[in-house]
Amino acid sequence: MTEPVIRPVTHIAFLLFPNVTQLDLTGPAQVLSRLGNARIDLVAKTSDPVPTDAGFALLPTATFADAAQPDILCIPGGFGTQDAMEDEATLAWVSQAAAGATWVTSVCTGALLLGAAGLLRGYRATTHWASHHHLAAFGAIPVHERVVFDRNRATGGGVTAGIDFGLALTAVLRGEAHAKLVQLSLEYDPAPPFDCGSPGRADAETLDRYKALVARSVPERDARTRAAAERMMAEPLDR
Amino acid sequence: MTEPVIRPVTHIAFLLFPNVTQLDLTGPAQVLSRLGNARIDLVAKTSDPVPTDAGFALLPTATFADAAQPDILCIPGGFGTQDAMEDEATLAWVSQAAAGATWVTSVCTGALLLGAAGLLRGYRATTHWASHHHLAAFGAIPVHERVVFDRNRATGGGVTAGIDFGLALTAVLRGEAHAKLVQLSLEYDPAPPFDCGSPGRADAETLDRYKALVARSVPERDARTRAAAERMMAEPLDR
Repeated sequence: MTEPVIRPVTHIAFLLFPNVTQLDLTGPAQVLSRLGNARIDLVAKTSDPVPTDAGFALLPTATFADAAQPDILCIPGGFGTQDAMEDEATLAWVSQAAAGATWVTSVCTGALLLGAAGLLRGYRATTHWASHHHLAAFGAIPVHERVVFDRNRATGGGVTAGIDFGLALTAVLRGEAHAKLVQLSLEYDPAPPFDCGSPGRADAETLDRYKALVARSVPERDARTRAAAERMMAEPLDR
Repeated sequence: MTEPVIRPVTHIAFLLFPNVTQLDLTGPAQVLSRLGNARIDLVAKTSDPVPTDAGFALLPTATFADAAQPDILCIPGGFGTQDAMEDEATLAWVSQAAAGATWVTSVCTGALLLGAAGLLRGYRATTHWASHHHLAAFGAIPVHERVVFDRNRATGGGVTAGIDFGLALTAVLRGEAHAKLVQLSLEYDPAPPFDCGSPGRADAETLDRYKALVARSVPERDARTRAAAERMMAEPLDR
């Protein structure tokens, strides 16, 4: 009889901030919770419930002050990213958690927050398609792929890419056979009703609707994102 | 100048119960939160945080006692479904909310809970592939599709099918153009790392691993599900 393999617990911390796109977090959290022996923390500035963009709040399991060092750090995105990347306490915790983490990862515009903490300088990375043009300002090498690995960085595209990211990371950490098992358990055999999930596939009318929807907020968000990138690039590389 | 169209708020209630598969709920909640003018409630027995299967809790926004009548009722699934379908207070609230709802829906094994409340008798429906064989016992007409509509019932397959369900319902409620906009905003252009997300696609080894993983819990779960179906079928049709 062979001895059972005792796998060390994998501690995964997701940053939680107000107005996060909750599926950026809950998608990969569902996948990674099936790594086996994984512990998931949602880490926020305080222990108060954190409002998401979907009309309900998520409850932190740890705060910046008391969170244990994660093996995997994952930063979700959403419209709240903008405020989070201007918040010194948030950037400080992200920098500190990243320094001790085996994997430093993001989903959606969480990549911009990694960028603002100086964590994508010289790394290949992706983000939500509508924010992809900002990656270079943070010193990242922009890649148009759904999930991008570069050394210990892994970044996913917009929102639903977090599921593909979670499965890809599972395959790296636990092997293909386990990742396939998780994919089957989540019945991940997607059947999108339309073929319009990325700008290259969407028709012009859908792209125009999207542009019209965000038009009012884009100039301010672009300016704030550029300013965050400039602040970070003014720091020494080992921030 | 034409008058702006004031759309009535769509009130969407998700049932929240202990050990829910949180992505069954958070996936469609993300999609449906972008209906425009939608209000999302997570309704539980009490206002205490509800533990999910992913290691963190979700916070109810309403309780059975104080929840407003939803337009759309959605029941997620997961291993906690078993206990929930044996809980009289839960079944009573589901029945009552369904009676006044325009849409009565489920994702994953939430269909079995709808079934236990007598809400799928005579309706075409789907559920997680590994529980699909139970649908007939609840008087449902089992359909092997990712999302199934039958009159005012809409049911999705396992876990990640909730995203396809949400988009399909969005198309019905707000039209194809809006659903495409939501799909693009969520960058839903899935790229599963493996082609194994359903039993028809998975290789024999992955299916065997899945069977081995759940083998110990299957007999008890099957027996409890059959018992719930028998209790419901003993009731008059208008329960």
